Amino acid sequence: MDQVVINEVGLRDGLQNQPTLLATADKLRLALALQKAGLDHLEVTSFVSPRAIPQMADADELSHALFAASTRHQDYAALVPNLRGYERALRHPYRELSVVVASTDSFNRHNLNKSLPEALDGALTLIGCAREDGVRLRVHLSGAMGCPYDGAQPIRHILDLAETLLAAGADELVLSDTIGSGHPRLARALLLPLIEGFGVDRLGLHLHDTRGLALPIALVAIDLGLRRFDASVGGLGGCPYAPGATGNVATESLVYLCEREGLRTGVDLEALQEAIALAASLTAQNLGGPVSRWLQHRCPVAGALPAGGLS
Amino acid sequence: MDQVVINEVGLRDGLQNQPTLLATADKLRLALALQKAGLDHLEVTSFVSPRAIPQMADADELSHALFAASTRHQDYAALVPNLRGYERALRHPYRELSVVVASTDSFNRHNLNKSLPEALDGALTLIGCAREDGVRLRVHLSGAMGCPYDGAQPIRHILDLAETLLAAGADELVLSDTIGSGHPRLARALLLPLIEGFGVDRLGLHLHDTRGLALPIALVAIDLGLRRFDASVGGLGGCPYAPGATGNVATESLVYLCEREGLRTGVDLEALQEAIALAASLTAQNLGGPVSRWLQHRCPVAGALPAGGLS
Repeated sequence: MDQVVINEVGLRDGLQNQPTLLATADKLRLALALQKAGLDHLEVTSFVSPRAIPQMADADELSHALFAASTRHQDYAALVPNLRGYERALRHPYRELSVVVASTDSFNRHNLNKSLPEALDGALTLIGCAREDGVRLRVHLSGAMGCPYDGAQPIRHILDLAETLLAAGADELVLSDTIGSGHPRLARALLLPLIEGFGVDRLGLHLHDTRGLALPIALVAIDLGLRRFDASVGGLGGCPYAPGATGNVATESLVYLCEREGLRTGVDLEALQEAIALAASLTAQNLGGPVSRWLQHRCPVAGALPAGGLS
Repeated sequence: MDQVVINEVGLRDGLQNQPTLLATADKLRLALALQKAGLDHLEVTSFVSPRAIPQMADADELSHALFAASTRHQDYAALVPNLRGYERALRHPYRELSVVVASTDSFNRHNLNKSLPEALDGALTLIGCAREDGVRLRVHLSGAMGCPYDGAQPIRHILDLAETLLAAGADELVLSDTIGSGHPRLARALLLPLIEGFGVDRLGLHLHDTRGLALPIALVAIDLGLRRFDASVGGLGGCPYAPGATGNVATESLVYLCEREGLRTGVDLEALQEAIALAASLTAQNLGGPVSRWLQHRCPVAGALPAGGLS
């Protein structure tokens, strides 16, 4: 199996923390630019309260526009925080939805206004609904490599949550390194027992590059056979409260790593550059990691290097 | 063996491509800041022609100042492009020197004004001298993962060069990914036979993060037992002809990866932040990778995250 599934989450996770509110038409342009670059799996919005996340207030409008503009309905996914969001989403022809459970009580209370047991119950209910409705359900376990409120969590605690969700029938369990506190050893310790118990095809990774370890973690996962990753165009995302803090792992970085490891992503990096430029222009942000800058400059090139003892 | 040797090359490889010429006193301040952060191995200068690299014109003056200011003479190393540079360096109490051989004829002609056989002969001569003089000699094989002029090279060609240099008595063979064209699979393919033939203790890596794969490559090397890495404070380096192009792997990134993998570096990341700030100020550059930005912002922190379906 040499094909990697890259879930492009720029339109959802990338935009949801932005100070800028994008017009639906601009989101549509970005979605089409991403598809043109070969990104076939787009998480496009979140059916969340517009009061909580005004950036996602156009979830219905955007969904209408996307499904009207494209014939590839199976490519779109959306996040749903609860049953109400799930029901809103299914007024559109989504075949895949994502739900979120956070790893701690504090994080769930802040994120979903629920306790951990309540959040887990909510996810289990949605797993049941999705199985009945024939919807593919991805369950994000947020803060799986560290909680923003309570810090590091015991590996056994994370595994218990993941195993409960997988045993209940989650089609895919996505270990989310929400604040980029993960590292290769931790990823290995979490992935190995889950792979053994449930098979690698039911596992995904959602990485943030906050401390620069997203690609080393991705490499560990690739070596273990994992083939499902979230990523965000140009690294769109980050934290609005800390300028310069790195957000989601950049799609182009992940694509470059995967291709260099001999995997197929189906993504055209040159076309992706155009989507990065569009996202940067729409959000007035400086986007794109090293791969994007390298593609822009192609440096060094013959003749451009200074002579004398270069190592 | 859980101790990593990090050769801080900011003062040499980091500064040699900079448009700014630093005063010797400022280089000395930076060296002392790096030492204060626990970086015990500094490559401080290059004994190269000042016409070729004006940034290194103060090699003698800086060496005098450093050895006068510190009692830890064994911590300093310098690069020597040829026998003339080697003899200049040994007027100072250096116990470790580096020499460079590039992987192709084109690259050696540009870099050292020599053919590949001539460059190899030059390195072999210096290996002999160093053994007689009791100097530890590191031999950088530049362009080991791709040549800026001739592109990818056959693995067998790189291994032949490396094996010749190691067999002749190079204390350490440093595979240099000069233009950041390396990747994990390539690193593994190069390192495995060299480790088997000569032992991992005689091997080092000099990585550039031009395409974002420096840390994944470092992780592969760590897993194979390699414990010697070059790195540059804040990622100082890059290519003066392409603003934004990433240079040497940032010391703080490598330190963070190593520590997270359970290795000891002896480096204090908080103190290193001060050295990064000093280097940024002296070179008027925006330095520091994700780890540095994370240390600055500590984001996200409790209360700083927006609510609602965060993954």
